[in-house]
Amino acid sequence: CLAVVGAPWFSIAGFTVIVLNAACLGLETYSGIEAAAGPLLRLIEHLCVAGFLVELLIRFGACLDRPSAFFRDRWNLFDMLILAAPLLPGVRENVTLLRLLRLARIVRAFRLFPSLRVILVGIRRSLPGLGSFLLITGLVLYAYAMLGWMLFGTAQPDRYGTVGQAMLSLFLLLSLDDITNILQSGREITGWAVPYYVSFMVTACYLLTNLLVGLVLTALQE
Amino acid sequence: CLAVVGAPWFSIAGFTVIVLNAACLGLETYSGIEAAAGPLLRLIEHLCVAGFLVELLIRFGACLDRPSAFFRDRWNLFDMLILAAPLLPGVRENVTLLRLLRLARIVRAFRLFPSLRVILVGIRRSLPGLGSFLLITGLVLYAYAMLGWMLFGTAQPDRYGTVGQAMLSLFLLLSLDDITNILQSGREITGWAVPYYVSFMVTACYLLTNLLVGLVLTALQE
Amino acid sequence: CLAVVGAPWFSIAGFTVIVLNAACLGLETYSGIEAAAGPLLRLIEHLCVAGFLVELLIRFGACLDRPSAFFRDRWNLFDMLILAAPLLPGVRENVTLLRLLRLARIVRAFRLFPSLRVILVGIRRSLPGLGSFLLITGLVLYAYAMLGWMLFGTAQPDRYGTVGQAMLSLFLLLSLDDITNILQSGREITGWAVPYYVSFMVTACYLLTNLLVGLVLTALQE
Amino acid sequence: CLAVVGAPWFSIAGFTVIVLNAACLGLETYSGIEAAAGPLLRLIEHLCVAGFLVELLIRFGACLDRPSAFFRDRWNLFDMLILAAPLLPGVRENVTLLRLLRLARIVRAFRLFPSLRVILVGIRRSLPGLGSFLLITGLVLYAYAMLGWMLFGTAQPDRYGTVGQAMLSLFLLLSLDDITNILQSGREITGWAVPYYVSFMVTACYLLTNLLVGLVLTALQE
Ligand code: NA
Ligand code: NA
Repeated sequence: CLAVVGAPWFSIAGFTVIVLNAACLGLETYSGIEAAAGPLLRLIEHLCVAGFLVELLIRFGACLDRPSAFFRDRWNLFDMLILAAPLLPGVRENVTLLRLLRLARIVRAFRLFPSLRVILVGIRRSLPGLGSFLLITGLVLYAYAMLGWMLFGTAQPDRYGTVGQAMLSLFLLLSLDDITNILQSGREITGWAVPYYVSFMVTACYLLTNLLVGLVLTALQE
Repeated sequence: CLAVVGAPWFSIAGFTVIVLNAACLGLETYSGIEAAAGPLLRLIEHLCVAGFLVELLIRFGACLDRPSAFFRDRWNLFDMLILAAPLLPGVRENVTLLRLLRLARIVRAFRLFPSLRVILVGIRRSLPGLGSFLLITGLVLYAYAMLGWMLFGTAQPDRYGTVGQAMLSLFLLLSLDDITNILQSGREITGWAVPYYVSFMVTACYLLTNLLVGLVLTALQE
Repeated sequence: CLAVVGAPWFSIAGFTVIVLNAACLGLETYSGIEAAAGPLLRLIEHLCVAGFLVELLIRFGACLDRPSAFFRDRWNLFDMLILAAPLLPGVRENVTLLRLLRLARIVRAFRLFPSLRVILVGIRRSLPGLGSFLLITGLVLYAYAMLGWMLFGTAQPDRYGTVGQAMLSLFLLLSLDDITNILQSGREITGWAVPYYVSFMVTACYLLTNLLVGLVLTALQE
Repeated sequence: CLAVVGAPWFSIAGFTVIVLNAACLGLETYSGIEAAAGPLLRLIEHLCVAGFLVELLIRFGACLDRPSAFFRDRWNLFDMLILAAPLLPGVRENVTLLRLLRLARIVRAFRLFPSLRVILVGIRRSLPGLGSFLLITGLVLYAYAMLGWMLFGTAQPDRYGTVGQAMLSLFLLLSLDDITNILQSGREITGWAVPYYVSFMVTACYLLTNLLVGLVLTALQE
């Protein structure tokens, strides 16, 4: 089994099953195809589950001499969970949960492609570096949300009615979408709207730029 | 007291008080929670103030042998100002000012987290380098605002009526929001609108890109 | 002929023909110019074709001692295809195809300018590095499209009716255009809209930023 | 005079005159201020012109031993042009031209600040490197404009009626503004709209990203 797991055709076969499974999931969203070829899609789906099971068994066979290694690999645990969960009562009847589990099988593609795994490792490594920047962004959003509630809370309750709603509005404003109209409607309420929004735009862009620069530098140091 | 100030639990306790204080401030914006648990929020707020006071006294105790060092640290002065200001007449009755002072306590989070302080130092260091770029951006905005006032001042007074209004409109245009409609309405006034807006877009993007590159390079040299 | 091909005026003459050909193509879209100077434009177009033919013959003449080298150069094959295709039956009568072939001649500019060719080589080299990032972006879009179809499929069939339509909507959302309204209309359907769109925005921006950083680093290593 | 030109107060005085001149120009756009203090603004403006003249004379005095050096400095020629042009007949009566000349005096700020001059030199140096990228962007826009005219020319004459109009529309589309609606209106005309706009978005973003990376690398090599 060890030789099989290391062979390139094993990865290719595994990826084919993932693509087939994802394609089935996608084709079911087209009501025409679902009506015409529903049973066929269901059949392919069962074949995909069989394929996942066979793959997992071969991987287990490759670790027969030390089974603990098999259970210590997080990918194997993830695969087992995804295959076993649809059998549980409570999940079995829940169409939404079943669909989410089938969707989660796409994540397995990251296991099979070494190049994708490299990116995943890079992303995981840059996450802690992001932490303090996200904390600062959160603090800035919270402070501006409180100011926004004090300035526009009564006049624009749908946008600044509570601090949570205000944070969402300001998060969306980071995309600078519709800023012209939002500033205009703010100016009709209070003259503080101009310094409020202009300083927010400058601060937000500056923070996001610094975030980008920080990411570049962190990546360069590795 | 010195040992206490240096201990990790001292920072954690300080951060907990900041988060509690911020959470109270935020929960008060939800009228339902304010009606149900208003007195409780007020009580927690007073406890937070007490916590800030205790923290400041411990910090003072740690500097008992040379009190001048305590008063030379800007963070200590900031903390004292924030704690003492609500007692002043004129501030005591002003709900808005009191709320701003409570909001300002969030800034104290930067004192407690060394990683946040590092970012703050980095931002402060890159500010002078930004100076000349901001000056250029300001000159470009001013020149385009004067041109815009000459071209569209009479036809679009709400957008280019005065040079200040024109600068604000052009600053918002840096986000490229709604550029299609703005250019279209400009073309109906004068044929100069196309070269005016196209050159502004190219200049603005070029300046902002250079700003980003300048930031990256400045950061790399450190 | 070899001396002629290497001379700078040969490239300049070739570029002039390309520009003339492109200008004719463009001027034909102005109905006034087309009505006034249609036959003249047609004449220039025929002269351009003659120019391309002469250029190709000179290039062939430069390789007379080893004609196989002439046919191994992909640019020569591309030129021959573009010159010969309009003579084929089926293409000759098809105005759209003929116009596309004339448009394709603009691509020849990349052959004549060494600096453009350098960029083309750089772009071709960075394409495989992009592959895995595009694969991840595709997987993320597909997963979000399936989730979007489950959440909004019945309520917004024009946006999330099928997985293909949902992927297109999410691809457009990468530009953050109109995000405020889209999130608002989503919230009226289900409370899951906020985490759905916010996580999508953060993931998308993070992926695109990483893509940029990856590009910078790849380019730096060369 | 040489000592005067080199002194820091000379630059500061020169900058003060520029700022005064720019402020006058800006204040005239406020009709209230213009009505109340119009003659005062006119007086300050004449004093500014006198200031510019004195500065130029001092600079000439500093080069008395070799006047050709004075006339070889482009900044001196620029200053003389700006001071002499309002005296010419034809310019003297043209309010717009006079205002543009006064606006052009802001550019003199670049002469006085060494840090601004450094940026100006950096921008001038990166311009030729931009050349080939702009040529590629132009070619891509032209090719897409011709395709757009063929696909949407008859159905959307206001957007794709001529190749010039189409290039402007596509240039604006580089900002991704309103892309959702534009794609939607295109889909109602032809099914080719989706590949057309999606490929344009990907190509445009890729080109702009490469442009940024190119700029960073060029700047790093210096
Ligand atoms: Na927009
Ligand atoms: Na936008």
